[in-house]
Amino acid sequence: MDSERKLRIVVDAMGGDFAPTNEIGGTLSALQETDNGFEAILVGKEAEIQAHLKKHAATGYSLSVVNASEVITMEDSPTAALKQKKDSSLAVGMRLHREGKAEAFVSAGNTGAVLSAATLILGRVKGVGRPTIGAFFPSEQGVFLLLDAGTNVDCRAQHLYEFAVMGSVYVKEIMKYEHPTVALLNVGEEEKKGTEIVQQAYRMLESGDLNFIGNVEGRDLLAGKANVVVCDGFVGNVLLKFGESVPSFLKSRLKRYAKGGFFRMLLVGLMRSPLRTSLKDMDYEEHGGLPVLGVNGVSIIGHGSSSQKAIKNMILKAMEVAKNRINEKIEEALAQSPPVIPSSGQAVARA
Amino acid sequence: MDSERKLRIVVDAMGGDFAPTNEIGGTLSALQETDNGFEAILVGKEAEIQAHLKKHAATGYSLSVVNASEVITMEDSPTAALKQKKDSSLAVGMRLHREGKAEAFVSAGNTGAVLSAATLILGRVKGVGRPTIGAFFPSEQGVFLLLDAGTNVDCRAQHLYEFAVMGSVYVKEIMKYEHPTVALLNVGEEEKKGTEIVQQAYRMLESGDLNFIGNVEGRDLLAGKANVVVCDGFVGNVLLKFGESVPSFLKSRLKRYAKGGFFRMLLVGLMRSPLRTSLKDMDYEEHGGLPVLGVNGVSIIGHGSSSQKAIKNMILKAMEVAKNRINEKIEEALAQSPPVIPSSGQAVARA
Repeated sequence: MDSERKLRIVVDAMGGDFAPTNEIGGTLSALQETDNGFEAILVGKEAEIQAHLKKHAATGYSLSVVNASEVITMEDSPTAALKQKKDSSLAVGMRLHREGKAEAFVSAGNTGAVLSAATLILGRVKGVGRPTIGAFFPSEQGVFLLLDAGTNVDCRAQHLYEFAVMGSVYVKEIMKYEHPTVALLNVGEEEKKGTEIVQQAYRMLESGDLNFIGNVEGRDLLAGKANVVVCDGFVGNVLLKFGESVPSFLKSRLKRYAKGGFFRMLLVGLMRSPLRTSLKDMDYEEHGGLPVLGVNGVSIIGHGSSSQKAIKNMILKAMEVAKNRINEKIEEALAQSPPVIPSSGQAVARA
Repeated sequence: MDSERKLRIVVDAMGGDFAPTNEIGGTLSALQETDNGFEAILVGKEAEIQAHLKKHAATGYSLSVVNASEVITMEDSPTAALKQKKDSSLAVGMRLHREGKAEAFVSAGNTGAVLSAATLILGRVKGVGRPTIGAFFPSEQGVFLLLDAGTNVDCRAQHLYEFAVMGSVYVKEIMKYEHPTVALLNVGEEEKKGTEIVQQAYRMLESGDLNFIGNVEGRDLLAGKANVVVCDGFVGNVLLKFGESVPSFLKSRLKRYAKGGFFRMLLVGLMRSPLRTSLKDMDYEEHGGLPVLGVNGVSIIGHGSSSQKAIKNMILKAMEVAKNRINEKIEEALAQSPPVIPSSGQAVARA
């Protein structure tokens, strides 16, 4: 990548639940905020996009539009949709990235389809068996990355090990955590806890070069015991969705409490601001989307319901990731210390 | 059981972190509250127990003490401890229950050891492959039972099916939920989501006689979509511990917010009561311990840190469970509709 040249970011204009409104609005506000600091490529139904741009009276932006006649919806089966809808905004946009016409790709669309497209079109980083998507969680010690967040429900120990390596590189390079700590999510602290797969992963992580601190339990997550927490996508997905539902549960409980009289109502009204401030980083939008890790490129995935602000943050995050060569570092880290899967007992590093 | 006769409840006096203080205090207060409505059998180091009873000046209670010279600690490996410590309060108490000298057993000790003792000493209910422990979760629709809560980290579809049957009988008979709804915890609503094991379990549940409402996701739990939610013990344990850590995370966040000035401090002070009231049923103590399901008897397990109140509630819960013949109902339900594990496609009920 020519360092003189502006980064080119593809935005899947048809991805999210509020597409293309939020996608276009978010892109324009990212361009404003960076003073046209990158080149935006909006991919999707051109006529529709142009009509929106006209509404915004969007001139003077470093922006282009590439037509794609089809849209992959949230209901579409990821792999089937990619085969059938060759001219979808997702496929067209991802191909632009692969062909070197853009340095990053951003979408708030069907998560499974984005991951599949990234894996199939961009290809995997050398040494990576399973690309993954991580999720950010708040904790008493700051934000940490949990991965896999739902894309790989069935994992072997090797995959968990790869997630740890990829997560570790990501939080070091992008989130600037020095010597990030890595932990394995388990049902107890002891090495011999959990399933056979998790125990194998423990031995691999112990023999590797990461800053592995051992197992953490469910109760250790919000306490912030590690910067990177590894689990299979089944556990990760359940936890992520459970965690996201906590604030609304709390709200519903307080609402019921407020029904108990005027003073209670007043009290609950007063609580809004402290609660909102305190739980701010449980808010998805703040983190700028989730990175697809382990593919040859930069793909950022957002929540289907991403707001304009969330799209803007995703674009800014994509720029940051594209500037770093995290894929090279992932490849390097996986090549450096690939522990052989031990059938039992101690792990042995491949000679 | 003679209905004229008082129920006899064994209390493991040496089980919890604050044993025997809380165990004895909790037993006495259960006897007070029920007006000696049951016969308590305190099992443990007799001299120590008698000394405590003397302190309480405990006379007039329907209470006896059975000596057991050993104690299984929280650090002991469950199976090894049971083999080595034949005269532990846990083993002696459980044997009293098996021999018909008591109708129920209550312990706040080492969870794994209690489950092992219950399984090995009492034996499994006919048709049950894996006894289980459930946990109660709060929700917008009232408390629901999640199982397995951590005892079986690796489950086959048949086990998940059994958990559903046992949970369904429990919430119907003990919690008086009519036609309880049962759901499978998964990463999406669709039948084809999740691991192969979970998909198999889906087909079994669909072909069975339970009020199965399909898959629920992490976000549906606190919303209260089902009365019984089934998952493997790995997921259940992580979720349970994560959920238990939410209130303390919230507290720490609010504490930090309060440091921002006097008004903020005041506000957070005012929030204490509404928050406590709103989150009351996230409190372990209120639910009276967790039942071991699938063993020939009644075993209630409490948190290691159980207070006197928690022990009292566990005893009251044990009486309630002992009065119901839930094991017969579990056996019946498992015998009635045992779906054959389908290798793929539809499930077929055994003829």
